[in-house]
This record gives sequence, C-alpha cells and structure tokens, in this order.
Amino acid sequence: MDERLKKQIEFILEIDKEKNIFRQTHLSNHGRNENDAEHAWHMALMAFLLKEYSNQPIDIAKVMVMCLIHDVVEIDAGDTYAYDAENLKTQKQREDAAKERIYSLLPDDQKKLLIELFDEFESAQTAESKFAHAMDNLQPLLLNNSNGGSDWKEHGVNSNQVYTRQSKTKEGSVKLFELTDKIIKQNIEKGNIKS
Amino acid sequence: MDERLKKQIEFILEIDKEKNIFRQTHLSNHGRNENDAEHAWHMALMAFLLKEYSNQPIDIAKVMVMCLIHDVVEIDAGDTYAYDAENLKTQKQREDAAKERIYSLLPDDQKKLLIELFDEFESAQTAESKFAHAMDNLQPLLLNNSNGGSDWKEHGVNSNQVYTRQSKTKEGSVKLFELTDKIIKQNIEKGNIKS
Repeated sequence: MDERLKKQIEFILEIDKEKNIFRQTHLSNHGRNENDAEHAWHMALMAFLLKEYSNQPIDIAKVMVMCLIHDVVEIDAGDTYAYDAENLKTQKQREDAAKERIYSLLPDDQKKLLIELFDEFESAQTAESKFAHAMDNLQPLLLNNSNGGSDWKEHGVNSNQVYTRQSKTKEGSVKLFELTDKIIKQNIEKGNIKS
Repeated sequence: MDERLKKQIEFILEIDKEKNIFRQTHLSNHGRNENDAEHAWHMALMAFLLKEYSNQPIDIAKVMVMCLIHDVVEIDAGDTYAYDAENLKTQKQREDAAKERIYSLLPDDQKKLLIELFDEFESAQTAESKFAHAMDNLQPLLLNNSNGGSDWKEHGVNSNQVYTRQSKTKEGSVKLFELTDKIIKQNIEKGNIKS
C-alpha cells in the first residue's frame, strides 16, 4: 500500500474509537446514552434536511464534513458536558492536543484541511460553522425533549444555562431558534428545566 | 410550528431508531457489534477522505448524503447480512415498504429527493452511487481485518462470497479494490476466509 493511502486508512481506523465516546444525551424512547459517532451522523443528516432554514446561504458539503468531524478530538479529550463548568475550563487545551495527535495520522494536506475545518467550526464565525453549531445544539435538544426533558432533570439544569448554550442557534438559524425557544419554554413550564 | 418543519422534525426523530439497528460487523479492538448510524457516519467521512480514488469525478455532497441515508430503511426492514442467502431473497420487498413509510414522514419534495437518492444508490449505476457502494464494502472490511477477520471466521464465509460482494468496489474505485484484494488474499492465507 502506498504511504498516502496507508495514512488515510490508519486515520479511518483510529476514528472508529469515536463510537465508544458516550455523551450525556439519551436516545429517543428513553434509550441508552448516545455516542459521538451517532450524534455526528444525526447532525450531518439534519444539516442536509434543514439547510433551507440557515440565515445565510451555505456550502452544505462543508457543513456536513464539519458535523462529521467536530467530535473526533473527543477520542482523546473525552466528552465535555455542556453544563460542566469545571471541565469546560480545560476543554480547549485537551482538545488542541487531541487535534494535533489525531489529525497528524493523515497526509499533510488532509491534516491541514481537517484542522482548518475544525477550527472554523470552533470559531463559529462563518455561515457554515454557525449552521453546524445550530445542529450541534438542536440535535440533543430534540432527543431530550422527546424523552420528557429527562437529561435536563437529571443534571438539574436551569433556564439560564440552557439559553446561554442554545442562543447560539440563532446565529445559524433564526427559524430553528424559534423552535428551540418554544421547546425550552414548554420544558420550563413543565418543571423539567429550573427557571 | 408550521407543517413543513413539523414533518422534518418528525422524520429526524424517527431516524434516531437507526442507532438501535445492529450489524454483523464488530468495532475495532474486538468491540461490540456496530450499528447502522455509526456505519453510515464512518462511510460518509471515508467518502470525503478517499474521494481522490474514485474512478470518475463525483459530487461529494451527494455521495455523503447517500452514505448517511442508505440504511434508514433498516429501521423497519432490519439489517440483512451480506452472506445471508435466505433473507437476501426478501430484502428488496421489505426495504421498499420501509422506504415508503419512513420517507413519507418528510414533506413531499424531500420525500421525493431522498427516495431518488436511495434508489440511485441501490441501482449502483452512477459515479456517486458506485463510490458510495465502495465505501459500504470497504468500511466493514477494514474493521473486520483489524480484528483478525473474526467476522468472516464466525460466519464461515468463503472467498467466493467475499469476492462476489467486494468486487463491486472495483466499479467505484480500482485503487481501493487493489487494497481490498490484498486484504482478502491475506485473510485467505491466514485461514480467516475459507478458500
């Protein structure tokens, strides 16, 4: 096998580990915890189906790739729960080290490309990264809401925390933030999110 | 929520069930069985990383969407193992019924689009669908090979069966079929695939 293909295959096998990184979100119908690969698959497909609601025109291939790769770093850095203040402090440092190690398995041009896409996602300044973030927020919100808000209840999350996280959705899609806001309000009303 | 978005969200929640459809393939490092959502995520990302090896120029966004959706029908139809002759006979009938029910959750235009993409994938006549099939074949082959061919051993699969399935990879990518052929030969030599 030539060196280039060998490196690509090595990376492809390495990222298989993402299927063992579990999140706080539970699957619908009160299922088990979701893993990062499943979350990324769901987000990428949602991006394709909901792209008409992006505030700005987007390159959907780019958004889908961002969705597919955005959690690869968690193979080393682990999942950081969106409402875990302590671990959020060290998240960037852990993820930067992971990014360097894991993407270095690829040929240099692809390492550069995927790191650029990941950094663009993290910075959330472009139309594509804003919409990808909207998917990253909306996907667990929909699952959690379908389970009667049990993830929020379990962690005693309050409305400030939820709005701080979910308000970013507005930057990607005003329309999907309207839906988000409606779901949050219903869950506050039902006592699933502390007001 | 307006009717269109409501239907899209309903479909998005329905396909969450794909995370509970388990395949015969095992995760690397002798892990558990893989599910359809994880498999689709892996395939879509592989398509992006390996697109330079496609025999023909491809629209990568289209390939990725094909990869992401190709197993949605298995929510109703179940996973049909590639070497299960009995169940392969009824696979098309089961998957056609599933296709109609599940994609009908979407707004009509998206139902039409996704069924067209699924049918294009199934027919394997276009450059995009041929490359997506190459991913569908290569992904489990790489995992299985990384586990010392344990899935082939477990099912007593022979070289004719493996070549019948994997030869389709050639139509999408001659280069990736060379790799496939090498891996199959090594596994025949080691006795993991019956010759």
